Amino acid sequence: MSVRAGVVVTGTEVLTGRVRDRNGPWLSDRLLELGVDLAHITICGDRPEDMRAQLRFMAQQEVDLIITSGGLGPTADDLTLEVVAGFAGRPLALDEALEQRIADILEPLMKRWPDLDFDAVRASNRKQAMVPAGATVLEPAGTAPGMVVPPGEGCEPTVVVLPGPPRELQELWRAAVETEAFREAVAGADVLEQSTLRLFGIPESEIAETLRVAEERIEGFERLEITTCLRRGEVEVVVRHQREAAEARVALGRLVGERHEHTLFSDDGSTVDEQVAQLLADQTIATAESCTAGSMAARLAERPGSSAYLLGGAIAYADEAKVDHLGVDPEVIERHGAVSPEAAEAMAAGAVERFGATVSIAITGIAGPGGGSDDKPVGTVCWCVQRSDGTRMTRSLRLPGDRAEVRDRSTTIGMHMLRRVLRGEDLAV
Amino acid sequence: MSVRAGVVVTGTEVLTGRVRDRNGPWLSDRLLELGVDLAHITICGDRPEDMRAQLRFMAQQEVDLIITSGGLGPTADDLTLEVVAGFAGRPLALDEALEQRIADILEPLMKRWPDLDFDAVRASNRKQAMVPAGATVLEPAGTAPGMVVPPGEGCEPTVVVLPGPPRELQELWRAAVETEAFREAVAGADVLEQSTLRLFGIPESEIAETLRVAEERIEGFERLEITTCLRRGEVEVVVRHQREAAEARVALGRLVGERHEHTLFSDDGSTVDEQVAQLLADQTIATAESCTAGSMAARLAERPGSSAYLLGGAIAYADEAKVDHLGVDPEVIERHGAVSPEAAEAMAAGAVERFGATVSIAITGIAGPGGGSDDKPVGTVCWCVQRSDGTRMTRSLRLPGDRAEVRDRSTTIGMHMLRRVLRGEDLAV
Repeated sequence: MSVRAGVVVTGTEVLTGRVRDRNGPWLSDRLLELGVDLAHITICGDRPEDMRAQLRFMAQQEVDLIITSGGLGPTADDLTLEVVAGFAGRPLALDEALEQRIADILEPLMKRWPDLDFDAVRASNRKQAMVPAGATVLEPAGTAPGMVVPPGEGCEPTVVVLPGPPRELQELWRAAVETEAFREAVAGADVLEQSTLRLFGIPESEIAETLRVAEERIEGFERLEITTCLRRGEVEVVVRHQREAAEARVALGRLVGERHEHTLFSDDGSTVDEQVAQLLADQTIATAESCTAGSMAARLAERPGSSAYLLGGAIAYADEAKVDHLGVDPEVIERHGAVSPEAAEAMAAGAVERFGATVSIAITGIAGPGGGSDDKPVGTVCWCVQRSDGTRMTRSLRLPGDRAEVRDRSTTIGMHMLRRVLRGEDLAV
Repeated sequence: MSVRAGVVVTGTEVLTGRVRDRNGPWLSDRLLELGVDLAHITICGDRPEDMRAQLRFMAQQEVDLIITSGGLGPTADDLTLEVVAGFAGRPLALDEALEQRIADILEPLMKRWPDLDFDAVRASNRKQAMVPAGATVLEPAGTAPGMVVPPGEGCEPTVVVLPGPPRELQELWRAAVETEAFREAVAGADVLEQSTLRLFGIPESEIAETLRVAEERIEGFERLEITTCLRRGEVEVVVRHQREAAEARVALGRLVGERHEHTLFSDDGSTVDEQVAQLLADQTIATAESCTAGSMAARLAERPGSSAYLLGGAIAYADEAKVDHLGVDPEVIERHGAVSPEAAEAMAAGAVERFGATVSIAITGIAGPGGGSDDKPVGTVCWCVQRSDGTRMTRSLRLPGDRAEVRDRSTTIGMHMLRRVLRGEDLAV
């Protein structure tokens, strides 16, 4: 049996793009784990009639479960509970014990701002203690409680009401899935297997061709739900299927591996960042960055535990910084330019030496919009990965896109070069 | 007259959160500029029935304009044009001239991948040349053309069909707004003024209280459409209104300025990043980063032209790197720890000296999840902004949130400290 869900994200700040929604994607993953099929995400502003319309749309689509995010704050534009209570036909009433628990949370917080009027703050938080009849309260992780609102008389879907801040939403979600009302709503969900193939350095249309070949050759191919997408320069092929179709999935993995041996870098869902982190386990790394200005080191440091191998790095934006902090010979810059394979190699060698690292990565380029020339247009980027044993890999490319895209893509290519070098592929001395 | 629009974002990769949607927010801004009121954003996967349901929902909500993003690629899961053609009752037909133009685009691209079968690639791109009857073609910026599909017989909304990659979508949007069909759809839109107040270091509930006071005191307050939100630790108050309500907007700005003099840092919509960039115009800056590992420098470098003042920086993740590359006295680390105001001050002083900068910022902290202690729990972060004239500002805080949030919030606080120091506020020697 298939259980379907919809996510309603509220907030004018999300609708107008001033805040990026992180909850829809996160909830999507959690629903997948539970075998619940997410059909729709909708985003509305703080206008109650628009939110009401979206809830009705979800009900018309016969979803079994709606999850709302946001609109539980103390300000007048936070209207989610009112709208959900109306939708489910369950009137709101003040829960005085909950109101007191919220007050207990607020009191110590207020000490950070000693000038505030505690009673005024408490009054503006009273509306957060209004509960629809029959709903289960999810205790606040910040100041706003969540709710699981069971179906009304018209057999509407169950509604899980969660706060907008991602950390709070995630904590309350864990409480929500344990409630009786939630379990009833998702009873009978059919868990699907999901797996991911990742390729780098190949156009998406080439994968389309491989999928057409797979359709002809692989028995049971039609039972695989496949989506492909291009993401930060990588092609991602995600396959979902019921357990019984596992053989077709294995055959697909084999076919992609045969046809794209050199570009398939992950068949177990691992990302290049995860692979590089593993390969760095017994190594130490330092960075030397110009156009990426620290993004490469910051990306390496995203992973908990990265301090075991990341020693540090030099951001050498100005030419003098390349000379002073990485020991680049000024003549190299004069002869070849600060954006050149030679400069990248000198920067990488300097990073290995000055940080005493076993491997380094240098990136120097022209991110734009200014600074380009006929010879070296905007988007020209040079990389060097250098090992302390003297082997290295150097690349120079012209990347498409704007300043942010060039800088971001530069770190992805850097990651793939690191992966190859750490695996001992394609090295030059 | 009010013109309403809806945005339909397609793609299982967006619905499942593997790709973050950047098009909804971007389109939202463009619509606002045109005075078009964006009511709904919906996201669906690659299932045609779900997309069809969302288009119908938008029509029921009586939007005048629907913009779709994505689903125009060469793979079989790219179904947008088929669905939109069905929705508008306008059958698809192959546009042979367009097919040839796409082939002309593909040919040079294929040179990057000389092993590919050109005919196979071309076949998989043929579907991109199918055009709904009566639609206006928007020439491809990548390989996929867009379309402006006029209302069908049932008075459906106009549909603007755009590709998913943001750069392509943006280029085709500029062509779309020039078409006759688009102009007719948005005729009569009522341009609203929008402005933003930003505050830092204040809870959102305090602003709620100020808005309640404003409601009592300011004539015409009800004509202002106000949304507040907490974003990267800042409170953002966005106000939209018709020209006639400008006086109420001025009065609101004055009231917020009076009540929140020390926390209101922007009343003209400028961000702290923009203000810092302006303040750095005649300065030079270097960074010294531990837990943020380059994110602070990368944030400074996001702005075009930042090379005029950003000299570079040292990422000193390991203690030895702090000593070797920033000249931190090992005794300071031994006595106070690598995460201490003293270490931050030594790092900042080292950055000013070693890069010859007029100002520097140092950040050292425990981003977690490991590395915390009773004395210095996860989230403990120390900052120092140092000027070459010897003045400086040092702060130490415990931040909430996970590793990514602590690192991100650390750069925001760093930006605000830089702003204050560069404005000559709150300095110590």
